[in-house]
Amino acid sequence: MHETRLDTARIRAARQVIDPIFLDSPLYRCEALEPVLGCAVSIKLETANPVRSFKARGTEVIASRLAAEGPSAVVCASAGNLGQALAWSGRGRGLDVTVVASRFAPAAKLDRIRALDARLELVDGDFDMARERAAAAARHDGIRLVEDSLDIETCEGAATIGLELVEAAPPFDAVLIALGGGALATGVGHVLKDLAPGVEVVCVQPAGAPAMTRSWHRRRVVTTDSTDTIAEGVAGRRPIPAVLDDLLVVADDAVLVEEASIIAGMRTLFDHAGLVVEPSAALGVAAILEDRERFAGRHVVTIVCGGNVDIDAYRRWIGAAPTDGA
Amino acid sequence: MHETRLDTARIRAARQVIDPIFLDSPLYRCEALEPVLGCAVSIKLETANPVRSFKARGTEVIASRLAAEGPSAVVCASAGNLGQALAWSGRGRGLDVTVVASRFAPAAKLDRIRALDARLELVDGDFDMARERAAAAARHDGIRLVEDSLDIETCEGAATIGLELVEAAPPFDAVLIALGGGALATGVGHVLKDLAPGVEVVCVQPAGAPAMTRSWHRRRVVTTDSTDTIAEGVAGRRPIPAVLDDLLVVADDAVLVEEASIIAGMRTLFDHAGLVVEPSAALGVAAILEDRERFAGRHVVTIVCGGNVDIDAYRRWIGAAPTDGA
Repeated sequence: MHETRLDTARIRAARQVIDPIFLDSPLYRCEALEPVLGCAVSIKLETANPVRSFKARGTEVIASRLAAEGPSAVVCASAGNLGQALAWSGRGRGLDVTVVASRFAPAAKLDRIRALDARLELVDGDFDMARERAAAAARHDGIRLVEDSLDIETCEGAATIGLELVEAAPPFDAVLIALGGGALATGVGHVLKDLAPGVEVVCVQPAGAPAMTRSWHRRRVVTTDSTDTIAEGVAGRRPIPAVLDDLLVVADDAVLVEEASIIAGMRTLFDHAGLVVEPSAALGVAAILEDRERFAGRHVVTIVCGGNVDIDAYRRWIGAAPTDGA
Repeated sequence: MHETRLDTARIRAARQVIDPIFLDSPLYRCEALEPVLGCAVSIKLETANPVRSFKARGTEVIASRLAAEGPSAVVCASAGNLGQALAWSGRGRGLDVTVVASRFAPAAKLDRIRALDARLELVDGDFDMARERAAAAARHDGIRLVEDSLDIETCEGAATIGLELVEAAPPFDAVLIALGGGALATGVGHVLKDLAPGVEVVCVQPAGAPAMTRSWHRRRVVTTDSTDTIAEGVAGRRPIPAVLDDLLVVADDAVLVEEASIIAGMRTLFDHAGLVVEPSAALGVAAILEDRERFAGRHVVTIVCGGNVDIDAYRRWIGAAPTDGA
């Protein structure tokens, strides 16, 4: 394997500083999904923890290192889940946490950030505007900026999921990973390519927020002017060059899925697996629904990466009509 | 503590024969529930596994012992979850599994039993009629009858949840346990009374299926002529004397809750925790909703014991009106 910014020994070490409540999440075969999806499906469930997403794996690494240096302040931009996770990790360690988010982020995510005692600053724009604002605040106040996917701890934390996947039996053929900034995909992808290189690493992004996927296919950074997707957790316009470099090493493919498939994916997971997942966490199932033939007869792991939904929107998504293909 | 039929050393030993996929289920504080419920709430989540309930902990113990004696057949009566679990545990070990269930059991549970290659026999009556039919079949065919709550392995398997609770930090003040046949309550209760006697063990049963709760209060078996509850997983009419004896030793209280509270409990867990749970698994939250004062300011664990719902009924339960008290 070509080099990435990640190192498997450092990822193993990261496990030592992450609260065990976020580690060893459930990984199980979900046979009830199989008649619908036409392949063997295992769920890696990252929603059954205090922040209902995988993001705390990374913020635990960051916050434990920061706290070791004494009381300090930290700021991040967030689509919602990173901010909630950083607030949780910082609160227990006496860190002063500020989260910058889009005012269009799901109210449930913003409410949880506030409830976890973080300072919440809203920008009148999208996630990439929040990124700019957080960077400016960090410069102005001289405090630590956490940049999701760029800061190696966010990738190392996510990569601990990869260790849990390769340690599990039986082996599987492919893993479907939601692609946004790239921390999850590069982290898990690095571990798989290092320790289980036969597993196909497939990244999935909404067609309405395709910047990183287009960048991967063209092997150079491609930005977009806007995004249009309900999967706000992965809706970035400006891929980070260093993250793209890593993704080019570890991903076997990057595919785009339609909004209707994301909704069908959420419905499928609700109807047949009893799981409440946010749109980003349904991208893997959406990819199977759009291309059953590709996965037919194979054993696929999909990482259910988050479950923070605005519940009224979610009721609409799961309530309207029968699941496509079910 | 007075003696029960259970033994903590045997419960520890049971862990060695249970597939790890059913052990160490998530246990986490769910702060989003706390403004609604008025107390600190931790979730012990038993739904994120291949059979979506805790019952496989017990069937793993049974099936591993049976399989050690060579190929054999086994029959059980089930409200749905035990049958699914026994089918799963038996399939992997070459056992011939028959499940007797009420034809009024949720179709989702019956479908999963069939999908797991068990023989399914339906009776035109309730769970206690299925019990009689299973016992008759076992006698007729000379095969092993698994009796939930009476067979000690079903209690020992459930009791492994208790070990995981007492090993977790921080400590908690009370645990809310769904009460049906009594395997879960006596198993978890035994471990708590043995290893963490300061924790209050509160059993919760639907007012529409109150036989075991009435029996506990009167300290003798009380049967009922019928049951009337959506929580079909705990709807028995004829408590087993030996199980009641154990329950009298380990339970600090047994309370009944109304159907409306069970539905409100399911809605609360859906709206604020993102969890799809079956009615039996909402009994703990229902008990808090009915008596907030009792639990105010305390740290309560509720065991979310199953998530097998008929999805259309579930949509109605969570869809109609705002959560009581939310």
